[in-house]
Amino acid sequence: MDQQVKANGNYSGRVVEGPTNPMVTPLLTDLYQFTMAYAYWKANKHQERAVFDLYFRKNPFGGEYTVFAGLEECIRLIANFKFTEDEISFIRESLPGSCEDGFFDYLRGLDCSEVEVYSITEGTVVFPKVPLLRIEGPIAVVQLLETPLVNLINYASLVATNAARHRFVAGKSKILLEFGLRRAQGPDGGISASKYCYLGGFDATSNVAAGRLFGIPLRGTHSHAFVSSYMSPDEIIDKSLRSADGSSTCEDFVSLAQTWLSKIQWSSSLRGIFGETNQSELAAFTSYALAFPISFLALVDTYDVMRSGIPNFCAVALALNDLGYKAVGIRLDSGDLAYLSCEARKFFRAIEKEFDVPGFGRTSITASNDLNEETLDALNKQGHEVDAYGIGTYLVTCYAQAALGCVFKLVEINNQPRIKLSEDVSKVSIPCKKRSYRLYGREGYPLVDIMTGENEPSPKVGERILCRHPFNESKRAFVVPQQVEELLKCYWPGSSDNPREDLPPLKDIRDRCIKQLERMRPDHMRRLNPTPYKVSVSAKLYDFIHFLWLNEAPVGELQ
Amino acid sequence: MDQQVKANGNYSGRVVEGPTNPMVTPLLTDLYQFTMAYAYWKANKHQERAVFDLYFRKNPFGGEYTVFAGLEECIRLIANFKFTEDEISFIRESLPGSCEDGFFDYLRGLDCSEVEVYSITEGTVVFPKVPLLRIEGPIAVVQLLETPLVNLINYASLVATNAARHRFVAGKSKILLEFGLRRAQGPDGGISASKYCYLGGFDATSNVAAGRLFGIPLRGTHSHAFVSSYMSPDEIIDKSLRSADGSSTCEDFVSLAQTWLSKIQWSSSLRGIFGETNQSELAAFTSYALAFPISFLALVDTYDVMRSGIPNFCAVALALNDLGYKAVGIRLDSGDLAYLSCEARKFFRAIEKEFDVPGFGRTSITASNDLNEETLDALNKQGHEVDAYGIGTYLVTCYAQAALGCVFKLVEINNQPRIKLSEDVSKVSIPCKKRSYRLYGREGYPLVDIMTGENEPSPKVGERILCRHPFNESKRAFVVPQQVEELLKCYWPGSSDNPREDLPPLKDIRDRCIKQLERMRPDHMRRLNPTPYKVSVSAKLYDFIHFLWLNEAPVGELQ
Repeated sequence: MDQQVKANGNYSGRVVEGPTNPMVTPLLTDLYQFTMAYAYWKANKHQERAVFDLYFRKNPFGGEYTVFAGLEECIRLIANFKFTEDEISFIRESLPGSCEDGFFDYLRGLDCSEVEVYSITEGTVVFPKVPLLRIEGPIAVVQLLETPLVNLINYASLVATNAARHRFVAGKSKILLEFGLRRAQGPDGGISASKYCYLGGFDATSNVAAGRLFGIPLRGTHSHAFVSSYMSPDEIIDKSLRSADGSSTCEDFVSLAQTWLSKIQWSSSLRGIFGETNQSELAAFTSYALAFPISFLALVDTYDVMRSGIPNFCAVALALNDLGYKAVGIRLDSGDLAYLSCEARKFFRAIEKEFDVPGFGRTSITASNDLNEETLDALNKQGHEVDAYGIGTYLVTCYAQAALGCVFKLVEINNQPRIKLSEDVSKVSIPCKKRSYRLYGREGYPLVDIMTGENEPSPKVGERILCRHPFNESKRAFVVPQQVEELLKCYWPGSSDNPREDLPPLKDIRDRCIKQLERMRPDHMRRLNPTPYKVSVSAKLYDFIHFLWLNEAPVGELQ
Repeated sequence: MDQQVKANGNYSGRVVEGPTNPMVTPLLTDLYQFTMAYAYWKANKHQERAVFDLYFRKNPFGGEYTVFAGLEECIRLIANFKFTEDEISFIRESLPGSCEDGFFDYLRGLDCSEVEVYSITEGTVVFPKVPLLRIEGPIAVVQLLETPLVNLINYASLVATNAARHRFVAGKSKILLEFGLRRAQGPDGGISASKYCYLGGFDATSNVAAGRLFGIPLRGTHSHAFVSSYMSPDEIIDKSLRSADGSSTCEDFVSLAQTWLSKIQWSSSLRGIFGETNQSELAAFTSYALAFPISFLALVDTYDVMRSGIPNFCAVALALNDLGYKAVGIRLDSGDLAYLSCEARKFFRAIEKEFDVPGFGRTSITASNDLNEETLDALNKQGHEVDAYGIGTYLVTCYAQAALGCVFKLVEINNQPRIKLSEDVSKVSIPCKKRSYRLYGREGYPLVDIMTGENEPSPKVGERILCRHPFNESKRAFVVPQQVEELLKCYWPGSSDNPREDLPPLKDIRDRCIKQLERMRPDHMRRLNPTPYKVSVSAKLYDFIHFLWLNEAPVGELQ
């Protein structure tokens, strides 16, 4: 943890480390946040108390849910938000020379001690329009936070949601491995992807830096280049291998594997499936097994899966078995994965039977090669024998939809509610400093999220409440909640005395996410034509929104 | 430059700074690179000299060209490639306990002093299959570099290409601003986007951190929240504004703007276009102008562009004009940008005429709001008056295609050429340590790229040479080049005595990129149905590829 800890912020008596990526500084923002800050300062308006909501307008990937992620990094930034002298000099250079010195003195003393952040808990399943974060504080400071907070939440939530969707299609029993680093959008596109895919339900990553930073389990064996870097088993000099229990040593493991290969070749049940296997591949597998006898997993598609890769793998695996080791399995990285996995499984079962090696039939099969939700779904439909998936490009770049459109809207200033109008109703903001609640029904499913004004009484268990669509007057429903969960919790109390929530470890956030996803009503979660989850406002807030709207909107004139 | 300089690498006597993002360390790689390194080491094969090619297989975005970017960051990593003790401990934890200590001693001494990197110059227009980088060195080290190099080049080249494509549609005369930070895939998704969009031909960014790191011009004014944070002009306390030449002071700039607003309202040529404008907007514009009289640019669509935003802007701009300041312009962020820009232009021209303000008709119009290649193209077709575009989400996330599929293939080991076969011909690698050349025709256009074996004579100006498609025997052409450019240059000589190329400043890379794009034959560059640029191999290399292919491929058996 040497590099990533840049600064330390005091967090109600506890220290909050700086952002994981040291490039996340108060300068990681849009220039207009500084020009606005200057204009506010110049008008002596910079200390006016403003409330902003951070939310998104539409669930990604054609789905009806989103996993909220990225909060911890936001709090790390906020807790350590402080300009260095170098940074202030750069801001000065970037603004017109006419800007007054007092502004830079103001920046020098600026931090987030007067900012309050209420947020939904990281790992929660969330829905459009409901604030993920509500940020309150001096308008100039909160504006400066807009860009980094939106940046830190947009991709985190998008990729966590993508991971959750992949998990949903793959099924609970499969191992999901994130292999996306090389194709990710830049270095921490890769590191963030590893973190938030794990949060969204993946089991492990190939990304060593992410493993180190976040404690995510690491997985990986070898590539095609490893296989083609060998010419023949003659290359292998040190051929000896100790048995698993240390009781004996096989002096020529290479020959042992070769012997097994001929046994397989001439066995009655396997005969005819293959002729000569590729010798450079056999050499690579043997060499890899000598290096990793306890974790032998081989990539079997460099030459030909069924005629070379699988028999070579089995020969080495059976040689390992002689010495008391259990091979882990194979990886398929091309071709018809459904077909090949079934053929490989048959072969493993035949080996188990023929040579009486209990469990060999259950040897693990990992599949990779441009997998995504659709290909996983297609594999399920065809029938397959894959135990684990390695997923890269489509997962980490969120290829199906590369951005989540989180926005950051002013909802109140100096206790005056503000609304942002738009000809597109979906872009009208919901004004007022608000609270929001999730109401659960009799079967334990979440039924509806409801936003209320800050000072309205909260919905109560067993009490009927009217939930209204914020913009469509005919859409409304009475709900008698069996459980009421307040969504926004205090994660950064600023100068208030509010108690604040802990930032839990990634593993706990992941557990929460998995439980949250399991608790949703299944029709919201299905891939095709999912039912939208309802998001509502209280009757009082509804009336106020529409009062404000009419007040602000210009009256048209038809000419 | 305090954070991003992590370490310094000696680079043929000159120091090369560490990667811009301190998260780019030797751990930013896939675990399997370490398991392979261990297996190579265990087999005493780790020092074998290997040659890898880094290339892509298909141009992105349905186009026929790609801009190569990311080289400097690769060289920064290579020049500073060294494990810390902490990193080595983590690798040890991540590998099976049976791994021998000697390996970790080996890692301790490992660097890139024996690695040679030949690369195409950053900012060059490049094509599928032709190596972008050729990396030669001890196989274990070069494998470790695979993941970070591919990561650093994939997104850089993808987003630079996307920027170049946006420039192509927008036209040379327009100002292109990158506004993508908040929607980018993580913090350095944003920072890299700003860097490589500039490289690909954009003019400026909103991203302050990128401006500081790379010297990219910064742009930005204010947001909708700024506008809605004001209630009325009465809020403005300090109303005085010095004239541009300092000769006088207007004591009530607010009234001056209000007076201009009524003049516009009652002018004969503008009458009837609008009634009452929004007063909070007028207050925001006035306040912003007081803060930035020399660079007044207003976002005019918070309420209603033609009935409020434009008249309010013009009132403030004319008040500034009275004091000798020239307003910069407006930004439109919603609605029908073609129509609104034309209407705004008409209004500006009418103001110029009515109030005799020379040049007012040319007031700059910036458009933003989910722009991409298609919307720019549609704007061109409709006719518009936009001078500058602010482009975010679609540009930086490469929404149309979120990943470039760069690969890293072993082409030679111990002077033995290697080929990676695949049932999909487009995935077969081109073996051998190679050179590559770009051949230019009589009209100055590049005609074809040709790869040859390392020791073949290079193509010569005026000498006829046969260029063959690497895999399709019927596709071949004789070329008499008028200019021959060798593509791969030495950027990291390792222990060789080869002279090495400088890493030029970003501005020079950008200039090169723009010149390169201009030099291409137009039919390769068009958006719809572009002509593929030809990529070929020499006759000798062709024959060798097919000899090796036949040699390696298993002979099928139809059953």
